[in-house]
Formats: sequence, C-alpha cells, structure tokens
Amino acid sequence: MKALKYKQIIDYIKEQITNGTWPVGSRLPSQRALASQFGVNRSTIVTALEELAADGLIEGRTGMGTIVVNNTWTLMRSEPPLNWNEQVGRGTHQASMPTVQAINQAESNEDLIQLSKGELSRDLFPLEEMRVVITKVGKNLEPFGYEEPKGNPQLREEIARYLSRKGINISSSSILVVSGALQALHLISIGLLDRGSTVFLENPSYVNSLSTFQSAGMKLQGIPIDQEGINPAKIEGIHQTKNSVLYCHPTFHNPTGALMGEKRRQELLNLAERAQIPIIEDDVYGDLWIDSPPPRPIKSLDKHGNVLYLGSLSKSLNPGLRIGWIVGPEAVIDRLADLKMQTDYGTSSISQRAAAEWLSSGLYEEHISAVRKELKVRRNAALQALDQHLSRYGEWQQPAGGFFVWVKMKQEISMADLYRKALARGVLINPGRIYSNQKSPHFRLSFANAQVEDIVKGIAVLESLIEDC
Amino acid sequence: MKALKYKQIIDYIKEQITNGTWPVGSRLPSQRALASQFGVNRSTIVTALEELAADGLIEGRTGMGTIVVNNTWTLMRSEPPLNWNEQVGRGTHQASMPTVQAINQAESNEDLIQLSKGELSRDLFPLEEMRVVITKVGKNLEPFGYEEPKGNPQLREEIARYLSRKGINISSSSILVVSGALQALHLISIGLLDRGSTVFLENPSYVNSLSTFQSAGMKLQGIPIDQEGINPAKIEGIHQTKNSVLYCHPTFHNPTGALMGEKRRQELLNLAERAQIPIIEDDVYGDLWIDSPPPRPIKSLDKHGNVLYLGSLSKSLNPGLRIGWIVGPEAVIDRLADLKMQTDYGTSSISQRAAAEWLSSGLYEEHISAVRKELKVRRNAALQALDQHLSRYGEWQQPAGGFFVWVKMKQEISMADLYRKALARGVLINPGRIYSNQKSPHFRLSFANAQVEDIVKGIAVLESLIEDC
Repeated sequence: MKALKYKQIIDYIKEQITNGTWPVGSRLPSQRALASQFGVNRSTIVTALEELAADGLIEGRTGMGTIVVNNTWTLMRSEPPLNWNEQVGRGTHQASMPTVQAINQAESNEDLIQLSKGELSRDLFPLEEMRVVITKVGKNLEPFGYEEPKGNPQLREEIARYLSRKGINISSSSILVVSGALQALHLISIGLLDRGSTVFLENPSYVNSLSTFQSAGMKLQGIPIDQEGINPAKIEGIHQTKNSVLYCHPTFHNPTGALMGEKRRQELLNLAERAQIPIIEDDVYGDLWIDSPPPRPIKSLDKHGNVLYLGSLSKSLNPGLRIGWIVGPEAVIDRLADLKMQTDYGTSSISQRAAAEWLSSGLYEEHISAVRKELKVRRNAALQALDQHLSRYGEWQQPAGGFFVWVKMKQEISMADLYRKALARGVLINPGRIYSNQKSPHFRLSFANAQVEDIVKGIAVLESLIEDC
Repeated sequence: MKALKYKQIIDYIKEQITNGTWPVGSRLPSQRALASQFGVNRSTIVTALEELAADGLIEGRTGMGTIVVNNTWTLMRSEPPLNWNEQVGRGTHQASMPTVQAINQAESNEDLIQLSKGELSRDLFPLEEMRVVITKVGKNLEPFGYEEPKGNPQLREEIARYLSRKGINISSSSILVVSGALQALHLISIGLLDRGSTVFLENPSYVNSLSTFQSAGMKLQGIPIDQEGINPAKIEGIHQTKNSVLYCHPTFHNPTGALMGEKRRQELLNLAERAQIPIIEDDVYGDLWIDSPPPRPIKSLDKHGNVLYLGSLSKSLNPGLRIGWIVGPEAVIDRLADLKMQTDYGTSSISQRAAAEWLSSGLYEEHISAVRKELKVRRNAALQALDQHLSRYGEWQQPAGGFFVWVKMKQEISMADLYRKALARGVLINPGRIYSNQKSPHFRLSFANAQVEDIVKGIAVLESLIEDC
C-alpha cells in the first residue's frame, strides 16, 4: 500500500513537470502539503522526492524548498540548443527581451491605445478587395502541389515587374519568395553567415529586438545614424572586420523614420564594394511614402550583385498573407532557396496566388495609394498632438513615410518608468532601448495602428505622465 | 586606354562571379580566350587576374587553369555557416546528397514515370472541393493580421477535434500550427536539441535524406527495423546516450511501409519513459490506411507528455497548403511557438482558414475516404505487377497503407546502376541508400503518384533492366 502511494506520488509529480504545469524553475508544494494531499507520512514524500532528485528532475535548495530543475525535455540539453538560449540569456539582450515579450503580449490587448504596433490599423484592411482576390483565386484554381523552390513562377514574374518600377531590373530567377522579411533574415543568418561573423547595422535598429542574428551566433555592431541614417564616412572598422555583412534599412527606417538620400545610397554601396562586404537592404516600408516617393533602392544602383534586397507585403498590404521576397545574385538565391526547402518546403500556394493577383490586378497600387493618404492624416495628427503636448519635453523629426515618429526626451526621465506608467494608463509605447540594447532617451510612437482620436488622447496622457515625473 | 581595358576586364569578371554566372569552383575562360574577347595582350589579362587573385576571388591551379574560389558572399565565410555546409559535405552524407538533389530535380520532369514522388497524383487533387473551400474562405473573410503564435484558434480547435478521433485528447493550447511536418522537425532541431545530441531513428528512414538534423549538428543513430518497425527490445545504447531523442514513424513508415502494432507502441513508450528520452512521433501518413485503420498513435497512450506528435495535411490532402501541426506538452509547444515566431511570424492566414474549413466541413473525411479507395487500386496494381515481373529477383511486404513498397533485391545488383539505367529509360525510383546512408539492396517504389498503367509499365522496364544486369 505504501509502495503504491509512493509510486503514485512520483507519477503525479512527473506528470505536473512534463506537462509543464510545474515548469523548470518553479517550486514544488511543501512536503507537508504533499503529505496531506496524498494522505501519507512526510517520510513517504521524502522518499519520493529523493528518487525524483536522483533522476535529476528536482533539487532541494536551502531556504527555497524543492525546485524543478529539469523535465524530460530539458534533461537532454546539457547545453542550450544551438546557443539559442545562451544568446537570448546573454549580455545586453537579456535586459531587453522581457520588455519585448511584454510588448508583444500587450499588443494583442485591444483595450489599449496602440502607439506601439508596427502594423496597419484594422480599418485599413482592404476587406472588399481581399474578398474579391481570394474568391477569384478559389474560382480559378487549378491543381497545385509543392511550388518551385524559389516560389510560384507567376508571382515571381509579378514581383519582377513591380521591382522594375523601382529601378530594380532583374529576372524572376533572382527572386526567392519567402514567408515575410523575418524569414528572409532567418534564412540569411543560418545560410550565409558564420557563427561569430559581424552584422553591421544602424543603431538603433529594430533588429536588436529580434533574436534572429544573435541566436545564430552573430555579433551585432551598431553604427550611429543621423537624419539620413547611416553615414558611410563614419563607419569604423568595416574594412578590418572579416566575415561581416551590413544590414541597413535606408527607407523610412524602423524605429527612427530616417530616409537616406540618393547620394548617400551610392556612397554606402561604394563603401561596401571597396570593403567587399555584402549589403542586406531592408525595404519593407518603401511603398509607404507620405510626402513624395523616396529615392530608388540601393539595389537599383548595384551593378555587381553586392546587395541582397528584402521586400514584403506585410507592412503595406497585410501580414497574414506571409509573403515577402529576397532579391540577389542568382547563386545566392539558389542557396537560400535550397535552405528554404530544407526548413519549410516553400510558402503557401494559396497565399502566393493571392499575392500574384493583388500585384497583377492593380489592386495593390490602388490600395497603397489609399493607405498613403490615410497615413498622412494620422502622421499629421500625431505631429500636431506632439507639438501641442510634448514640445517642451522632447524633439523629433517629421517622418516622410513609414509608421513611426522617434521621440527624443530632452530631460532625464526614465523611459522604463514612462513606459510602465503609460501602460498602466492604457497607452502602449515602445521604449528606445529595445532597439539599441542600451539606455536611450527615446521612445517610438506608431501612428499606423491607432485611430486619430486615440493617437491624440494617448499623446495627451504621455504629457500628463511626464509632468508628474 | 590600357588602364581602362584592365579595369573593364576586372569589372566584367567580378560581375560574372558575383552574379553567379561563374560560380565558386568553376574555371575561368583561358587567358588566350579572354585576351581575344577584350582585344588586349595576354599581359593585360595576367595583370587583371593577378589583382582578382589578390582580392581572394580567383586562384591559379597547376594543370587546372584559373578557378573561382570566392565571391563577395563566400569571402565572408571562412568557416561554413552553422556547420551547414560542413555537415552536408561530411561523411556518408556526402555521397547521398547529390542523388537526393538529382531525384528532386527529376521529380519535376513530367515526362518521367514517377515511381519516386511521395505525393498524391494530380488527378487525386480535389479540385471542385478546393475551389469551394477557398471561395468560401474568400466570401466569409474578416480583417486579419498576424495570427496567434500557436496558430489560428479556430484551426487549432478543429485539429483538436480531429485528433480526439485518434484517441489523442488534448486542448488546443497543446497544438502548434506549422507550415508542414518538415518545419516541425526544423523547429525541434534548432529549439529543443543540442548540437551533438543523438537522434535515434529507424534505419532506413526518410529523415536520412534530409539535412535538417545534421545541419543543426545532431548525430543520427539508426535502429534496425523489421516488418513492425522499431523493436524496442533491440535498441542498444539508448539508456547510456545522454541528450538523445527517438524519432519514429510507426504508421506506414517511409520508406518501408512498416506498421507498428499496438503492443509494440506501448513497449516503445515504456522504454522511452524509463530511459527518460522524448519520442517524436511522425504520423503524416496515418490517415492513408488501405486495408483497415491502424492502431492508435503512440501519443494516445502517452500519459506523461513524453511524446511530440507530428501531423500534416500535405500527404493526405495537399502539400501546397503548407499546413501541419505539432502536439506536445504545453511548455514545449510554447517554446516551439516562440521559435516559430522568430523564424517566420506564423503560417499563412489564408491557408489556416482553408485548412479549418476542410476539417470542419467534413470535406476532408470525404476526401481521404476517396483517396483510400484509389490508393488500394494503385497499390494492388503495383503488387500484381511486382509479382509478375520481379518475383524472381526481389521480395517485399504488402504495405497496409501509405504510398510505398520497399523492394529488396535478392541478387547482388548495383542499385546505383539500376537507378541510372531506369532514369535513362524514363522511370524514376529511389535507391535505398538515400534512406540509410549505406549500401542497400533496396529501392522504394511509390504507387501514389503515377497512373496505374504507368506503374505497370515502369515495373516492366525495371524487369528488363535487371535481366540485363
């Protein structure tokens, strides 16, 4: 009878642990509580716990009780897998990740005023057109299976045509369809870069809030930026750094909104060619200009295949389609296509057909031109509210496109405080340090997601909080 | 003038290299040919080549001419990224990969008799139903954006309901929607396993022809199988091997078609529990039984969260949707969902809605019951043709489901030869060694993709080739 109970207790505890009800790091109920729960003596509990400790699942710690230290899944990992955890838990990254996670969670809270989300507002969702497109895809469907490794040929033709309007003249065989720009970065990081290689990038950069490169073992090396983004004359160490790549976001930079001029684009390309380091040009906001079209992408100036260019429909149309693209030298695209096949066998056929239909029908152009008008209204409202409420406390540039205003506070106020207090008042903003992994007097304000009245209300709340600080 | 030409020649060669026209490893045209192409002396060519060699792009090799050894992209990789290349180029893997690549390519050749493809024949594509489903998704569309990290809630509810019919009773929070079972393996390999950890798996196993685990630095440890797959009594070293996981495919195993009985499923689970190693159960063919329903999945017996279970619509419905799932302890699913977000921000919203509609409408059940009937016709035709043409030369088991017959040749004939000669005669089969990384007297014959008359014709061709050997 005692043996049976003892086995029961072990099974019960194991189940709680493996099911994750008692995750690694959590404290077991007290021996007294367990004894009473199972109606046994404490000595029976002690014996059961000793066996579980011998299995490596739990550990008694002085003053802390008994802690879950492993489950079946973690037992097999003496070291963290692929340095994923190690990287995430290391250095400055460690500090920012919980904030990023908290923000991700808060972004799904519909009661908050979302001055955080880098995603078009739901009322800019082109519902009628999307219905038309999907229904048409359905009606015209022919049997399909796995797509070609580089993606659906018709979609790639449409992307090539679309890119030619930006001055990027390439054939569809230089295009890889991916499930969004983040997947592009993931494929590049596992497929083209070395563990230990260096990624030069703008500081701040939204990539700092991702674990993509760090998880794959790359070092991030920030480059200070001005209102035109990276100044090639001020990049240090790039000639000396082996195995490096330059990641940049020259058009409506996230988070600062900076726009790089034509001259600087050429200079940056020249520098990269001289230093023989590839450029990854992220252009996911390029279609979302507000005042006037931006200069052509760096890729359009690239005669030697030095630039890998990333685009996406996620920001300008809809992220749920999961459609983006990488453009580059065919040999690199072939390599990345092979990796893509190794990781997920390609992007949804239905999504690819829908994207092709959006581009070929002209509906995409119509849609973004409507989005531009609406973004202008929201940006102007945000700037006006900022002027009215925050001009004494902060400064900012007018962004010429994209989703964000990058606000720098003049006084020493704690951004972590402001973020927390704003959240308590129902307003979500992104503190600057998640983009730079260091203390930052900035916050990022998105005007793409909230309604005009909420944008204004949110900024007024920020004013009252800053006054209290 | 000479300086100009010299610069032109360098630019031209660089462009061919970076664009991949002259990939790494290829030989440059001779100096004579280049001199004549540019209308210059050979000395000018030599100077240009010397500069390119100094840049590390090319290298003169005795007796081989000038070889491209780097381009901008490879220059930055002193070591292969994440051991991807190293792994692919190492050991037994090296031999099999070119065959796998050749087969992948040959599988898109529609003139061949496809006894290779593990994909349902195009005439089993449920065109009318797919049109109805997608059109309905289009008509009922509401605004969407990024889905929840674990996937669309409605789809996860439908998957939970579908799995409960297999005896797997879990809540939708224990399900992660992925873009096919391959992505599941990719996420598991980068997120749960250690570099250097051991994956126990059936030998042969189709996983041997993938680079997923090897690329992530895992060791594969084959377990011999019989007609019921893995025999738990015969697994060696599993108790002693730290950081290991058991990958298995108990239902209509690829490539052998083996089906594990109920008793052995329980024994295997018991073994894994005792050895404290997790099981990854791959069940992508489970719905495709031909004679009678298979035993319930190992996952249905799992009381302690020891099993990660993989399913997919790719084999039974269509691979172009890119919809699969992982089921496991919630803590593990949370971890994998986070990784999925880090790699591609989720699976296509449209595909997820289409999959939910397939499952909820009952169309999926109708479809697979039609597929089962058709698979029976094709399997029986294949077995009859094998009996008629190959019974003197080989032996095989009748598969009770799935797509494949695993044919063992009695005599010593070279499988590599047979594969090549069959291909030359327009018949594509998969030689056994791509599944075992060693010499194998087997080949895998798929009856799912080709028409009955082609299956029969293909097997007759094999007979004539074997007679010639």
